[in-house]
Amino acid sequence: MKIEEILKRCDHTLLLQGATPAEIRNLCEDAIHYQTASVCIPPCYVRLAREFMEDRMRICTVIGFPNGNMTEAVKVFETRDAIANGADEIDMVINIGLLKAGQTDMVRNEIRHIKEVCDTHILKVIIETCLLSEEEKIRMCDIVTEAGADYIKTSTGFSTGGATLADVRLFAAHVGPKVRIKAAGGISSLSDAEQFIEAGADRLGTSRIVKIVKEQGVLSNEVIPRG
Amino acid sequence: MKIEEILKRCDHTLLLQGATPAEIRNLCEDAIHYQTASVCIPPCYVRLAREFMEDRMRICTVIGFPNGNMTEAVKVFETRDAIANGADEIDMVINIGLLKAGQTDMVRNEIRHIKEVCDTHILKVIIETCLLSEEEKIRMCDIVTEAGADYIKTSTGFSTGGATLADVRLFAAHVGPKVRIKAAGGISSLSDAEQFIEAGADRLGTSRIVKIVKEQGVLSNEVIPRG
Repeated sequence: MKIEEILKRCDHTLLLQGATPAEIRNLCEDAIHYQTASVCIPPCYVRLAREFMEDRMRICTVIGFPNGNMTEAVKVFETRDAIANGADEIDMVINIGLLKAGQTDMVRNEIRHIKEVCDTHILKVIIETCLLSEEEKIRMCDIVTEAGADYIKTSTGFSTGGATLADVRLFAAHVGPKVRIKAAGGISSLSDAEQFIEAGADRLGTSRIVKIVKEQGVLSNEVIPRG
Repeated sequence: MKIEEILKRCDHTLLLQGATPAEIRNLCEDAIHYQTASVCIPPCYVRLAREFMEDRMRICTVIGFPNGNMTEAVKVFETRDAIANGADEIDMVINIGLLKAGQTDMVRNEIRHIKEVCDTHILKVIIETCLLSEEEKIRMCDIVTEAGADYIKTSTGFSTGGATLADVRLFAAHVGPKVRIKAAGGISSLSDAEQFIEAGADRLGTSRIVKIVKEQGVLSNEVIPRG
């Protein structure tokens, strides 16, 4: 797989609590230079990034992040605020406690209401696989499909585990035909990235792929060696 | 120190992503039985807890939690929403990235605007000590004091470290006379609790103190043995 093919699937990500405006600018410059799918940044920096990049790069931000246990009203407001500030894509976290309590209607309705606010903007739904059982993951594939979201996403990167190939394959087997897959958390090499894409991931949430390509010094058309 | 003296300083806390309505009800029942200062719960459960407990216990919830990098508009909205749902006390997380970038005016104004919404409701400001330098912690003591918040709080419990006695002593030496201290994260025994109180903590954020007292079976008027 060409490196460019991998880069264009990366949401180049910096969500650390202590990330500064200067670090966000550097992230944006790298994303533009290496032609990633988007930058994925905290909501407080969306406006800054939009002013800095104008229309040169898509902006993805996170809603109800990372714990997901805000009220629906706050998540809806945060989505509206993010889009007003210039976000193109919204990565929301589900309410995990309500899922575990079997209140799937509330989980589905929350996603649906946020998708209504998103309208044509892309909505990705983070289900935090590391906290879910196999049965809960499959149920979320159905709920995300029914709610009309655009992507199902594995992880926040702030809990006990990240993306696994097994989870991406599980998603691929259970989501509807319109729902794409984003793998995030712990993707740390080009061969990792390639394997996640081959397993069915359309997008990757990672900061390391751009770093690796940067360290290699040049983009190449070479096939990436496996392993 | 009497066990009752410790319990009445505890914000009995359950903020885990997967916490269910049933677990929140149990937490509320224990808080009422053991007469803690409050329950500290995710925003999505404030209304439920208020309906369940009516006026039998104070409710504390968390804003911009745990990463703190939402927009000010969202934090202000979330505070208003939480109070409308029945919260008595608001534990907000500061914008750590803006602090690190030296944008202290923005950090101070955000706290001030949330305090305006809180009005007479208690506002605690979580500064996430484990991510800050000594200088940044002292600067936050000044900012929290200037912004008119009621408490400075050490930690979210979701980052790389919790409360330390050294940080509580540092706060006690630097905050203004109207600002009280809440220690949270990793407080795991009655002797721990007593030491934090002696160091200057007015409140403790913990789930374990009630559990310990519950396991002991009875409340007692005995002095807790040290060590």
